[in-house]
Amino acid sequence: MSYVAPIKDMLFVMNELAGLNEVNALPGCEDATIETVEAVLEENARFTSEVIAPLNWAGDQEPSYWKDGQVFTTKGFKEAFKMFAEAGWQGVQHPTEFGGQGLPKLVATPCIEMLHAANLSFALCPLLSDGAIEALLTAGSEADKATYLENLVSGKWTGTMNLTEPQAGSDLAMVRTRAVPQGDGTYKVFGTKIFITYGEHDMAENIVHLVLARTPDAPEGVKGISLFIVPKFLVNADGSLGARNDAHCVSIEHKLGIKASPTCVLQFGDNGGAIGTLVGEENRGLEYMFIMMNAARFGVGMQGIAVAERAYQKAVSYAKDRVQSRDLAGSPGPVAIINHPDVRRMLMSMRAQIEGARALAYVAAAMSDKAHHARDEVVRKQNQAAYEYLVPIVKGWSTEMSLHVTSTGVQVHGGMGFIEETGAAQYYRDAQILTIYEGTTAIQANDLVGRKTARDGGAVAKNFIAQIRATQAELAASSNVDLQAIAKQLALGATALDEVVNFVVANFKSDIKAVFSGSVPYLKLAGVVFGGWQLARAAKIAQQKLQAGEGDTSFNQAKLATARFFADHVLSAATGLRSSIVDGSAGVLALGNEQF
Amino acid sequence: MSYVAPIKDMLFVMNELAGLNEVNALPGCEDATIETVEAVLEENARFTSEVIAPLNWAGDQEPSYWKDGQVFTTKGFKEAFKMFAEAGWQGVQHPTEFGGQGLPKLVATPCIEMLHAANLSFALCPLLSDGAIEALLTAGSEADKATYLENLVSGKWTGTMNLTEPQAGSDLAMVRTRAVPQGDGTYKVFGTKIFITYGEHDMAENIVHLVLARTPDAPEGVKGISLFIVPKFLVNADGSLGARNDAHCVSIEHKLGIKASPTCVLQFGDNGGAIGTLVGEENRGLEYMFIMMNAARFGVGMQGIAVAERAYQKAVSYAKDRVQSRDLAGSPGPVAIINHPDVRRMLMSMRAQIEGARALAYVAAAMSDKAHHARDEVVRKQNQAAYEYLVPIVKGWSTEMSLHVTSTGVQVHGGMGFIEETGAAQYYRDAQILTIYEGTTAIQANDLVGRKTARDGGAVAKNFIAQIRATQAELAASSNVDLQAIAKQLALGATALDEVVNFVVANFKSDIKAVFSGSVPYLKLAGVVFGGWQLARAAKIAQQKLQAGEGDTSFNQAKLATARFFADHVLSAATGLRSSIVDGSAGVLALGNEQF
Repeated sequence: MSYVAPIKDMLFVMNELAGLNEVNALPGCEDATIETVEAVLEENARFTSEVIAPLNWAGDQEPSYWKDGQVFTTKGFKEAFKMFAEAGWQGVQHPTEFGGQGLPKLVATPCIEMLHAANLSFALCPLLSDGAIEALLTAGSEADKATYLENLVSGKWTGTMNLTEPQAGSDLAMVRTRAVPQGDGTYKVFGTKIFITYGEHDMAENIVHLVLARTPDAPEGVKGISLFIVPKFLVNADGSLGARNDAHCVSIEHKLGIKASPTCVLQFGDNGGAIGTLVGEENRGLEYMFIMMNAARFGVGMQGIAVAERAYQKAVSYAKDRVQSRDLAGSPGPVAIINHPDVRRMLMSMRAQIEGARALAYVAAAMSDKAHHARDEVVRKQNQAAYEYLVPIVKGWSTEMSLHVTSTGVQVHGGMGFIEETGAAQYYRDAQILTIYEGTTAIQANDLVGRKTARDGGAVAKNFIAQIRATQAELAASSNVDLQAIAKQLALGATALDEVVNFVVANFKSDIKAVFSGSVPYLKLAGVVFGGWQLARAAKIAQQKLQAGEGDTSFNQAKLATARFFADHVLSAATGLRSSIVDGSAGVLALGNEQF
Repeated sequence: MSYVAPIKDMLFVMNELAGLNEVNALPGCEDATIETVEAVLEENARFTSEVIAPLNWAGDQEPSYWKDGQVFTTKGFKEAFKMFAEAGWQGVQHPTEFGGQGLPKLVATPCIEMLHAANLSFALCPLLSDGAIEALLTAGSEADKATYLENLVSGKWTGTMNLTEPQAGSDLAMVRTRAVPQGDGTYKVFGTKIFITYGEHDMAENIVHLVLARTPDAPEGVKGISLFIVPKFLVNADGSLGARNDAHCVSIEHKLGIKASPTCVLQFGDNGGAIGTLVGEENRGLEYMFIMMNAARFGVGMQGIAVAERAYQKAVSYAKDRVQSRDLAGSPGPVAIINHPDVRRMLMSMRAQIEGARALAYVAAAMSDKAHHARDEVVRKQNQAAYEYLVPIVKGWSTEMSLHVTSTGVQVHGGMGFIEETGAAQYYRDAQILTIYEGTTAIQANDLVGRKTARDGGAVAKNFIAQIRATQAELAASSNVDLQAIAKQLALGATALDEVVNFVVANFKSDIKAVFSGSVPYLKLAGVVFGGWQLARAAKIAQQKLQAGEGDTSFNQAKLATARFFADHVLSAATGLRSSIVDGSAGVLALGNEQF
């Protein structure tokens, strides 16, 4: 088996850290009982590991290809997607009203992790559909919903996000695609979009492109962008497919990784205009797009965790098999390399970062559920603010983490890691996109600094820090040596984060460049402190269970040790990161452009 | 121009940090005057950037290929290698007695950097020849030298290192290749070697394989390994080429990177036995191989610096060209992304790490020159010990650094970085081998911990730390704010390193697994502290020149700012690394194998 879903850890995080029982108690989440959740996870694990994971390597070796405007996906993808759709996996988190399962985000999140771990390229297609569904649910008219949602939720059709243009990457103010009203309620769309994931493919009957464009009288910049639905095939009033729309894929990219996922250049309107309909109101496109984007950003964070987990499993398997050199403590002959301290250190570093990031993401997912479903409006608002603070961290930190983890995965394999057929290199190549798309790490960090920290004067951040300190105090009061060691690093981490939040808030207006010089280090600091916090909570629970003789002893011992590793090896970077933020802008900003 | 050699920085490091004038004053190094050195560097820069660099991308797209036992290199490589050889570049650091230029290692080092920056795949061939030359110079008989050296030094022939076998990677004790004496002074060699760089190719008339093998009565393990010369074509008494030897390339690998460099499986003796001759004495093969390996390890460290520099130059160029988003401080329209603080931070992080690693490597090269040429035996010995301490750091840290820098290079390009045609991804893929071959980072770290630190009770390390503290005190006494900031971080770094050296020495015998659990973090700590130290020295000199109004003001300002950046953003990791070494073994070693 090339991928074994880490269900035990997923359930531990859901039950012990993210509060599945609290989520289950929310109105609308009554179906998410522990029994149902276990069944869903087990079935998803079976499906992803047996059906989707085996296609991962094939997708790298025989990527999707373009011919005469059509894109042909890797052999097996089409059939697998059909099975995925028919089993209802696209609809896990979407409303029952449109045929979904209506399960909470906390339950959908491990399903998403498994799908991405099985096959990053494959899973991108449903990820984009999820974004389109979210956008239409929030901003679409009743007619839009009636026309598109059921088929998107069932996986009969898929969705795309069309933002980027050659001159407009991170800067959407520069979008030039035009949408001209036809007087009949439709628009004709003209322009070129690039980097469109699954912008064309053969796995679904129709593709629902959500496209950012400008109407003729739109104001300049981001305030003049509207969102349009431009389906590949127009949809008749009775729901059947109509004419082929004037939206065509003219080429796909030759990429470093995720090669099975077609990255398309889409040409809109070269033959008279692509027919589109406006979503919501004119000039509010960016706002709607952010709905998709925030869902997708969280999803990309999960991709980081997923590919890291896959790389970890492969590295562990190799380290247990490969025999080389004697044990340092003495052995009759050579031993499996997992016995060598540095191999073990590498594996622990992969494992600890994955478990920290997973815990943080699932906890964030539960906050999203509370933000949507809690009875009390104050609770909803608090959870929404907390979730929004965490999204750029989940996206930015989990994906940056995946670069290190997949690189370490290659390293564990030694020379074999560099040989493509080994497969470790694929994860390394695939991961590199994750820190780029759906907003680069810098874009996430800008969001964290500006909208999420400075805007509320650091209130949400400070609330988190108070919770971290409460956890820290509990651990420090323990007589367990591992918990004490974790408490020591967590205290340093909380202090560092606190000082950085103060720095950001104090200087945001007076010295904006200095603040943004430290934006990515701040994001990384937040990642290690929050990940360390969640693992600290996990360690405390594991230690209590060990002491009480409850639960799975081996699992709880491993959790405690993994949290300890994280504290000494990952969280210990916090104080240094604080220096690079608080003292580091001088070095960042000193040079003139001509000095580079 | 795709690569511009950073000659200004190279000369600054050579003159101001590595002491070119002292090296020039050594017996045998009289030719290395500053005038000669400048001329050599400029000519090498011209050659590598004009002839070698343009072949780099072609080598990735149309790699060397195997057909019927022959390997055909990328179009243009053969002609370029001929020009390289004819211009005498293979012989820069080799004795004039065999046709070399006899220049010091300090002068050869920037030439090696330029060649690797221009084309990592191409440069590997001369790198391996350098290793073979070193081994024959040290361990070869007069007959060996007479037969092989002139043609290796001229680049007419090339050399290889044959260590690895399928079951023997890092663990050479497991080598099984056999060498059976024929009674005529030759041996017949039988076995399979894998991962042999340029083990077969079409760029030279002959290939001199240096092969580790066991004689029939050899003791087990590493004490029973001998070194043999097994040329592709036997060499007649008159020096002309004789029969094709029974050493054949049966396949080459499909790799993540350095694709133009053929990585061969060599089969020795399938048709009766490959004729080999013993180098030096039987069973001392490993010792001789270490001569090649130490030369090659330093060279691989230079590869890390080189590919990082190339990635940096590409990223700077893109960041100056790509226009996206307004300036944070306000601008009429969008600006080049180099103006955005996080892009600048990324570029500075690349630049600072490269300059730190370069300074350390060149300083080490000068120590090697003193170790070989100083009149005073005590000085020779001291420099040899210091150089040997630094080799695993130059190899391990510079190459680990290159992984981060080339990944950052992709990130600076945003979505374009993930498109292969952009070229940034090639550096990222190429770099990943550097932490693996010629001894993985863990092998370097083992060397640093065992042979280089524990064996002398930390004496060499402590001597370095004393020098670092002296530099630190000088900077702390300055009124310059940048120098003070650097001094602050350097003090923390020196303390961290000192405590770690104490930890290693104190626990090496009593708790060897704990010590080796921190071996790679120790190597990284040493890297950032030594790199930071060299940049601190550079900053002080730059600041003195600025104050005195001497030299290139822009260069000296940039050097000071770059050193400041390194201190706040890179050296600041030292205290955290100390924790992961001194406190971190508990987390590394806690799990049983079955818990992974």
